[in-house]
Amino acid sequence: MTDTIVRTLSAPDAAAAAGAAAAAVAATSREDRARWLEAVADALDAAAEDLVPIATAESRLAEARLTGEVARTTGQLRLFAGVLRDAGYLEVIIDHAVPDATPPQPDLRRMLVPTGPVAVYSASNFPFAFSVAGGDTASALAAGNPVVVKAHSGHPELSRRTAAVVAEALAGAGAPEGTFGLIEGTQAGRDLIQHPAITSGAFTGSLHGGRALFDLASGRPTPIPFYAELGSINPVVVTAQAVQQNGEGLASGLVGSFTLGAGQLCTKPGVVLVPAEAGFEELVAEAMGEVTAAPLLNSRIVEGFGQGIGSLAEHPAVELVAGSRSAADAEAPAPLVLVTSAAEVVADPEALLAECFGPVTLLIRYASLADLESALAAVEGSLTGTIHAAESEDVSALTALLAPRVGRLLFGGWPTGVAVTWSQHHGGPWPATTSVHTSVGATAIRRFLRPLTFQDAPESVLPDELKESNPLGVPRRVDGKLEV
Amino acid sequence: MTDTIVRTLSAPDAAAAAGAAAAAVAATSREDRARWLEAVADALDAAAEDLVPIATAESRLAEARLTGEVARTTGQLRLFAGVLRDAGYLEVIIDHAVPDATPPQPDLRRMLVPTGPVAVYSASNFPFAFSVAGGDTASALAAGNPVVVKAHSGHPELSRRTAAVVAEALAGAGAPEGTFGLIEGTQAGRDLIQHPAITSGAFTGSLHGGRALFDLASGRPTPIPFYAELGSINPVVVTAQAVQQNGEGLASGLVGSFTLGAGQLCTKPGVVLVPAEAGFEELVAEAMGEVTAAPLLNSRIVEGFGQGIGSLAEHPAVELVAGSRSAADAEAPAPLVLVTSAAEVVADPEALLAECFGPVTLLIRYASLADLESALAAVEGSLTGTIHAAESEDVSALTALLAPRVGRLLFGGWPTGVAVTWSQHHGGPWPATTSVHTSVGATAIRRFLRPLTFQDAPESVLPDELKESNPLGVPRRVDGKLEV
Repeated sequence: MTDTIVRTLSAPDAAAAAGAAAAAVAATSREDRARWLEAVADALDAAAEDLVPIATAESRLAEARLTGEVARTTGQLRLFAGVLRDAGYLEVIIDHAVPDATPPQPDLRRMLVPTGPVAVYSASNFPFAFSVAGGDTASALAAGNPVVVKAHSGHPELSRRTAAVVAEALAGAGAPEGTFGLIEGTQAGRDLIQHPAITSGAFTGSLHGGRALFDLASGRPTPIPFYAELGSINPVVVTAQAVQQNGEGLASGLVGSFTLGAGQLCTKPGVVLVPAEAGFEELVAEAMGEVTAAPLLNSRIVEGFGQGIGSLAEHPAVELVAGSRSAADAEAPAPLVLVTSAAEVVADPEALLAECFGPVTLLIRYASLADLESALAAVEGSLTGTIHAAESEDVSALTALLAPRVGRLLFGGWPTGVAVTWSQHHGGPWPATTSVHTSVGATAIRRFLRPLTFQDAPESVLPDELKESNPLGVPRRVDGKLEV
Repeated sequence: MTDTIVRTLSAPDAAAAAGAAAAAVAATSREDRARWLEAVADALDAAAEDLVPIATAESRLAEARLTGEVARTTGQLRLFAGVLRDAGYLEVIIDHAVPDATPPQPDLRRMLVPTGPVAVYSASNFPFAFSVAGGDTASALAAGNPVVVKAHSGHPELSRRTAAVVAEALAGAGAPEGTFGLIEGTQAGRDLIQHPAITSGAFTGSLHGGRALFDLASGRPTPIPFYAELGSINPVVVTAQAVQQNGEGLASGLVGSFTLGAGQLCTKPGVVLVPAEAGFEELVAEAMGEVTAAPLLNSRIVEGFGQGIGSLAEHPAVELVAGSRSAADAEAPAPLVLVTSAAEVVADPEALLAECFGPVTLLIRYASLADLESALAAVEGSLTGTIHAAESEDVSALTALLAPRVGRLLFGGWPTGVAVTWSQHHGGPWPATTSVHTSVGATAIRRFLRPLTFQDAPESVLPDELKESNPLGVPRRVDGKLEV
């Protein structure tokens, strides 16, 4: 474990340090930055034994889950090292001059370059993977930008210790001073996003908190993008044939998914459209026998869940399918399955389709495709949508219904569990995210890059990636043709 | 010329029609949409003889310029037909399942899909290329989205006639009803961007008007991106050696560029950093003998230029180099060259570095690299930056100074004239644009697309572009490896 002490900075100091470092960080090579990310990953792996107990104490999450999350986090850092070496993310495009065109066309060479300092806001529910050294930090550093992380108040000590590991690894790997900083506190977070040196924000958290920061970012004299992942109820559609074919498996899969991490995942299946007469509710009630309560992350989540579950479970159109509500278990509430109908959802979507962060899911009975259509039309943008159908069933109508509302569309399986790959998309129409970019997977790097086109530049000032001879062998499009 | 009458719609009607058409437009094939764009291009070429005189009358721009602009516009439409057939813009990424990974990794297939209806706001200074059938419309349609254009009040009749040509060509090519609509009026424009069916806005125009619409788009209950190209002073740096080597050529090039289109181009060189003692001012004054005054676009531009030039030319730190100001020529003001010093710019950047839309440029004398650095530090984000140096000169320091502030960096030549190519970038740090995306060139299509990832989808529901066998031969990344 490192002995480095990370001084938590004031927002202006942290932003100014990042601003001062931006040119030096941008000037580093892709290979240099790949080594930084690997150094951070190695250091985190080495520190895992020390960090996990702190995380357990602060987040109340289980040790096995947190140990797995460290591996996910370091895997994420290493993925971006691979993205850097691949160089496809630079989107290099070269058009040679066409002197006899009307008007004559100059030589134009485009690539993506870093935007500058990025403000990263940690989430409470992934104290490693969406926190100090998480995907936003990894992708922003990979892009060539300094990062200032706003620690989450739910795991302050873990944030400081992780920041120390990151800072020491970066310094050891030769990253410029100011490449990485940490701030704490709600007001500091607000100050950070309004600081002139900051060029974008990245956030995972609540709709309320994210919207407030989004409004500050958009309202600046110099507005900046605020890439926020906010809220998602992740609709699941189960067909009658699917229940017939594998009802028990689906019921236990659903229970496992909506209670994973005590239901505190942004991809939790929050509403499940179930055929009215197929007996699925009974199967879910049976499967609920297997689960036990787990503690929620912190008192703010406990309070929010209490309020959310109150208005949902006491709604006149909602019945209890399984689980119990008792004042005694507020810190570790028992998982709950509720049920209503498509018609009720259409009548009162605001109350029935609000995200409720914690171990609850709402079944919605449907009797027809028309029911499904009207209920799904009331669902706001989500990170995911899931279809459970029988193997032979035609799912094209369901696909067409769900695709416009989600960023990831699953056929079978459950939305919790987000693979960190080249093709992953973790985003969706508002309020799932505020932008058309992902916060998980290789293409998350696109958020922190901007195009720069060189016109008629002498070879001597061109970045190696744009030189005619392609000395670094980057994939590129030349005169309209892709070259790999 | 078409006899179709385009009924200008109310904003809610136009948005609702676009919303109703969105699914049908999104479901069309790339080849279908390529044919739509070509049909629109062919129809505009055929109608050019009728449209150009209307444009001349409404915009006061010269016939030759407008005829060339029609060709640029139809070339733009055809470029996007090529972008569609190329299919690289879909960013297809496939990761095959890895069942024995921990946790098991599903089959994931990502591509970009249309976002939905786009609101396009026309500009006054390019009545064809940045108007009803301009680049924003072309790229939004290419992406698979319905478009509602807000006509510019500077050329209402041309807008209606162009819209009729576009609507008839689209209908003839089989585009669904509601694919294209036209609205008029400032309030209608404000209503449009706030309509729930609209998923993004695209705008070229003034900082004031663009910021107002950006604020409305960001402030919606469901915020949407507003891709605006706003203001740019396009700094040019001329070295002493460049003046020695080719002073006369540079002087006449500058005069030609800043007076092109009566100085009403967003890429007009608005400030030129010139060596204090090199005699460049005299050469520019000589070159000014060649130019004549041209009428400004409309009374709002006349008024704005009058105000801007008033505060600039009467600034105590500014001297006149060439040209004259007289109340008589307000409608077609004589081109003006002014001069100040780097120190004065640093002392009062707000007054001296404000964009002044019309035939004026401000020379800024510098005596040292430190002067250059401090003056450029005061320049806000610009679409372009230009370096004029002697052939043997090392321009790496100037490149490093300009690159962070601009979207296109020119070595020699002049920023006016924006080639429509794969590699073009027409954008830059605020206030040049509000986003990291371009509004000109092939990659402008990225603004109107969002990723969608299919997880474990049966082959039968996958779009052809994501099918394992790649029946359409699209470029893609498979298991991390690019395939062309």
